[in-house]
Amino acid sequence: MSRDFKRLEEADLMPLAIGAALLGTGGGGNPYVGMLRTRELLRSGAKIEIMPLEALADDDWVAECGGVGAPVVGVEKIEEGGECHRAVMAVEQAAGVKCSAVICAEIGGSNSMEPIIVAGRAGIPVVDGDGMGRAFPEVQMTTFFIYGAKPSPAAIADDKGNVVVFQEVVDMFWLEKFARDVSVGMGAGAGFAVAPMRGDFIRKTAVPGTVTQAINIGKTVLNARLKHQNVVERIVEETGAKLFFTGKISDIERTLTGGFSRGRAKISGVGQWAGSEAEIAIQNENLVLWVDGEAVIMVPDLIMNLELETGEPITTEMLRYGQRVAVIGLPVHALLKTPRALEIVGPAAFGYPDLTFKPLG
Amino acid sequence: MSRDFKRLEEADLMPLAIGAALLGTGGGGNPYVGMLRTRELLRSGAKIEIMPLEALADDDWVAECGGVGAPVVGVEKIEEGGECHRAVMAVEQAAGVKCSAVICAEIGGSNSMEPIIVAGRAGIPVVDGDGMGRAFPEVQMTTFFIYGAKPSPAAIADDKGNVVVFQEVVDMFWLEKFARDVSVGMGAGAGFAVAPMRGDFIRKTAVPGTVTQAINIGKTVLNARLKHQNVVERIVEETGAKLFFTGKISDIERTLTGGFSRGRAKISGVGQWAGSEAEIAIQNENLVLWVDGEAVIMVPDLIMNLELETGEPITTEMLRYGQRVAVIGLPVHALLKTPRALEIVGPAAFGYPDLTFKPLG
Repeated sequence: MSRDFKRLEEADLMPLAIGAALLGTGGGGNPYVGMLRTRELLRSGAKIEIMPLEALADDDWVAECGGVGAPVVGVEKIEEGGECHRAVMAVEQAAGVKCSAVICAEIGGSNSMEPIIVAGRAGIPVVDGDGMGRAFPEVQMTTFFIYGAKPSPAAIADDKGNVVVFQEVVDMFWLEKFARDVSVGMGAGAGFAVAPMRGDFIRKTAVPGTVTQAINIGKTVLNARLKHQNVVERIVEETGAKLFFTGKISDIERTLTGGFSRGRAKISGVGQWAGSEAEIAIQNENLVLWVDGEAVIMVPDLIMNLELETGEPITTEMLRYGQRVAVIGLPVHALLKTPRALEIVGPAAFGYPDLTFKPLG
Repeated sequence: MSRDFKRLEEADLMPLAIGAALLGTGGGGNPYVGMLRTRELLRSGAKIEIMPLEALADDDWVAECGGVGAPVVGVEKIEEGGECHRAVMAVEQAAGVKCSAVICAEIGGSNSMEPIIVAGRAGIPVVDGDGMGRAFPEVQMTTFFIYGAKPSPAAIADDKGNVVVFQEVVDMFWLEKFARDVSVGMGAGAGFAVAPMRGDFIRKTAVPGTVTQAINIGKTVLNARLKHQNVVERIVEETGAKLFFTGKISDIERTLTGGFSRGRAKISGVGQWAGSEAEIAIQNENLVLWVDGEAVIMVPDLIMNLELETGEPITTEMLRYGQRVAVIGLPVHALLKTPRALEIVGPAAFGYPDLTFKPLG
């Protein structure tokens, strides 16, 4: 295998964290702690390469992993750090294979960093792509599962040394159910890995280039700040996103049930939207944006809240009364908009059967 | 290995079911369906041997299994039949060993039959003994765990084909937690197997002779019925139990929470106890009997409700207003009364820290 892939540099980490937080569409947890861990790995000599999708050989085995739990818990319950690696080792053992690369389940939020930490610990590259192109709250909501990945053996590992293997699982919905139940028992935060997948399958089903995309978005934000530009405007220009609302959070309702953060945020318009009212529905991530009662962006398209002044992405657990926000929308990758994908990640899958998905752009 | 063990005969099954229901101390589920399955196995030619504890070689591997869930669910959700066998095969694979015998986790209730079904399917004997000498609601409450059995790898399997392996578990309490959570996800009824144990360990830690004991109790009941004797009296004579109360159920409170049946039954005295009031606390099994406010029998000693007229054991999920019952008590095996055992199965372990265990007899 050719090994002249781009190396992940320390200078990439802050941009990656910012880009991943933005692509997290309010969820996926804060990548900050994972960024510090990755920096420590790099400083202690780990070489982490970013492998393009095309470089995967047909018979390479690829591990897909990420944290599973409620982001709001992750704010106070910091991971031990080896959770995802232990989960990956457990699925390798259960499947009887050795993985030569690792890929993000979701590029959005803290799960952008988890597979990179595994890559650094295991000495294998991280693939430039992921299974969502954003963040989603449930484990079956990846392009891999949508396009036929096997639901078992999968594994979950906690900070204490517990490792549970989902040896035989009827389908991906049962896997989500079991993983969720066990993750709640583990304290609503754990490392999760699915059955290793072959390189040819990953090449066809992964959302391509998203690690690089996240780094580029982050660099745009940092450059704009450095040059005292309007960060929200620069993000919109750079990513092809559209500004849908600006306003002040007037009400926020958030509960932690069944291992998820669920809730609603109300926003009173300012500037161009003065006099209008917006509302966002949340299940870990932002699901639907209504402006004056009309659903204008809906899952799986990306809904992102930015601090109006700084352009800093705001995760749903950090939303608070009085915050001034810009809400932008970005079309999701085509792999997530097929009829098959919409069954798993469309509005109906999130409990909005009356909303017919109208794609952005 | 000598193989002239006693064979389980069809004529043993009804007595075993009756004895097991009695030793279930109100819990453990009804052995009736398991009895029918075992009968089918025997009729289709399976040879099931009852192996004395002493016959186990030091390096024999023994599988311990049973159903896990809430007995009240088992009344309507009948097991598929292969759950425990699939769980045993999963722990054999995870531990890399082949078991040459199987032993009951609990002789009380439906779990008396589960390992016998596995024995018949796998073509190996069932050991004459168990880990409780009765029934208890939680998986760590066996003599095996009390005296140091490893908590992993254990496994749980459902009727649909799902198999979850608890690959690495910090301790037996985490195992109970994970098994309980997953069993709830599986519909509050599943087959469970712990890590295979060596013959020398089983010989030292199992409650001996309980399969035979259950069959003998059942035969006593059936004989007494045949001869129109007072069944309750005959049970008391045969087992060394003592009659503690006779009365009519005046109130019953029962909820299904966290995968357990929990509740209380109040009994108004009749006959010798006319004017007295008794109360029984339940967590799947009968935990404490109070008569006129005084705790007279408490876990781990056995508290058994029998129908006053027929001597039929009544499981907690079958208790109902107006039933006339006899409450008898039986001392538990010495292995369950050591200080170490009382930490796991004494009154405090069941939420009664103010009750100091006073053994019967």
